[in-house]
Amino acid sequence: MAMLSVEILQNILIRAFSENLVYGKPAELYDPIRYTMELGGKRMRPLLVLLGCDMFGGDVNLAIDSAIGIELFHNFTLLHDDIMDRAPLRRGKETVYKRWNANRAILSGDTMFAMANRYLLRTPPECRAEVLDIFNLTAIEVCEGQQMDMNFETMETVSLSEYLEMIRLKTAVLMAASLRIGAIIGGASEDAAQRLYEAGISLGIAFQLTDDLLDAYGDEAAFGKITGGDIVTNKKTYLYLMALERSDGMNRSALLNLFSSTTGNPEAKIHAVKRIFDSLGVPELTHEAIRSHYEKAMILLNGTGIADGKTKLLRDYAASLMQRQV
Amino acid sequence: MAMLSVEILQNILIRAFSENLVYGKPAELYDPIRYTMELGGKRMRPLLVLLGCDMFGGDVNLAIDSAIGIELFHNFTLLHDDIMDRAPLRRGKETVYKRWNANRAILSGDTMFAMANRYLLRTPPECRAEVLDIFNLTAIEVCEGQQMDMNFETMETVSLSEYLEMIRLKTAVLMAASLRIGAIIGGASEDAAQRLYEAGISLGIAFQLTDDLLDAYGDEAAFGKITGGDIVTNKKTYLYLMALERSDGMNRSALLNLFSSTTGNPEAKIHAVKRIFDSLGVPELTHEAIRSHYEKAMILLNGTGIADGKTKLLRDYAASLMQRQV
Repeated sequence: MAMLSVEILQNILIRAFSENLVYGKPAELYDPIRYTMELGGKRMRPLLVLLGCDMFGGDVNLAIDSAIGIELFHNFTLLHDDIMDRAPLRRGKETVYKRWNANRAILSGDTMFAMANRYLLRTPPECRAEVLDIFNLTAIEVCEGQQMDMNFETMETVSLSEYLEMIRLKTAVLMAASLRIGAIIGGASEDAAQRLYEAGISLGIAFQLTDDLLDAYGDEAAFGKITGGDIVTNKKTYLYLMALERSDGMNRSALLNLFSSTTGNPEAKIHAVKRIFDSLGVPELTHEAIRSHYEKAMILLNGTGIADGKTKLLRDYAASLMQRQV
Repeated sequence: MAMLSVEILQNILIRAFSENLVYGKPAELYDPIRYTMELGGKRMRPLLVLLGCDMFGGDVNLAIDSAIGIELFHNFTLLHDDIMDRAPLRRGKETVYKRWNANRAILSGDTMFAMANRYLLRTPPECRAEVLDIFNLTAIEVCEGQQMDMNFETMETVSLSEYLEMIRLKTAVLMAASLRIGAIIGGASEDAAQRLYEAGISLGIAFQLTDDLLDAYGDEAAFGKITGGDIVTNKKTYLYLMALERSDGMNRSALLNLFSSTTGNPEAKIHAVKRIFDSLGVPELTHEAIRSHYEKAMILLNGTGIADGKTKLLRDYAASLMQRQV
């Protein structure tokens, strides 16, 4: 077999998505699913499934159905999250709930979750039950994380450790489960698959903290979205919570005041908040936290006992996720 | 083993629901799930799982987890349907979306669907994949049925065959799948399980038509809800579509006119609509359709080749579903 690369795996996925997904009737139910799945995105999670499988010398073709299932699930969560967050745009296009309505987004999402389970059912029989159990347990945890995120909206203060637990559930467990499911299909021992899962958790947390940082400090052209959105919407990100934790007196009152309304000039608000972040060293501290979680992931990856040559694709891909433009 | 009865099976289920279901954190996610599962209801679908299993001489204890999974799934669909239908009440209590809000109902529902899959994963290994495949395919069909139902709201006319296809998907496939899953766990041959499924489809259609009839003509005290609700909300039930199909001129205009608004005196509207239904013989025709689908179910049940003694519990229970107060 030819040497695999991330690009080859991504091409395998692009072909798999266009060839495998079939949409039924009525059109009102399946049009939003097709629309969502054809919007693209990074296909990060299905790629992690394939990388997890390849790392243990497995045949990635056996992991493609599971990879599709994971991506369907992830997109289902986006459909429902966008209703809950009233998000008008996703990947630069109207969200399903905006383009159609909330009912369509609810029901098409539900259908995608059932479709996801059916794709995961095509896992080779010897590991099917284990994969499905991890998948549905992860699905529950993702819901728990989303509920915590919503709870945070109305809480005055959230500790950094509460925030890290929320992003572990909302974001990291699905990335970790993707790697683990791939590893299991690839023939990993239970112990190695568990260690890879733990590495995936740390990687997922580093990934989300990078997202938080990019939202405030990213290069708009390279990041692909307008920066400062989290600040404008008073989102309690790692940066904001770190700033609150490290500030007192004037800065703290100013921050709380700035985050108490969504009216006013957004540019001025972003500017004022970032000045406070800067004065408290928040971007550097966030960088440091990202580096620390990322390094932990690499140490855990080493702990799986897999030769460096075999983990190179994942390490390179993980590095690329961290080195998005800041 | 002592002779089973429907009452014994129902008691097994009541105990299983209170002993097996565990609720995690955060409370905001799980409180609506607990609330819903503790509201009760007929537990018709899990009972059908146990009846399907017992019929083939299987150990019903092996089917309890699947029965719980099916009930969790059914209740998940209610949470989401109630948002879509803006239904304020369910089983005489506030719906989740009314008591909390739509976001809570969306996310708690999603969690229940994942929980349902985890319960179904506890099916004995030799039939686990088959059961999960039927379950998730059925879940997709239920979504298709719900979408058709929503489509009907804005369509001027719907044919009786379109209506029957909608209730097949929205209601009957889950009842049929419940029986089939129980049968598979009970050791049925593929052919016998398929025949039982077909019987379940006919029974499910008869069940829904009975519901339609009871909504307009039921004894309020015995039926447990106020009659005429479908008429007041302009719901395109079997009765209404049958009336439209059989009427012309005055009656047809009057019906279309009565079903064009939700304002006005509800009592007067119910009275006027039922007068038209009566004049067209709609209740008798609906009775006749119920009888016909029910008889078909019994013929298909005979076709499974199971001795009458073994199907008695299901036949008695099916008869009780048809003989709710009209």
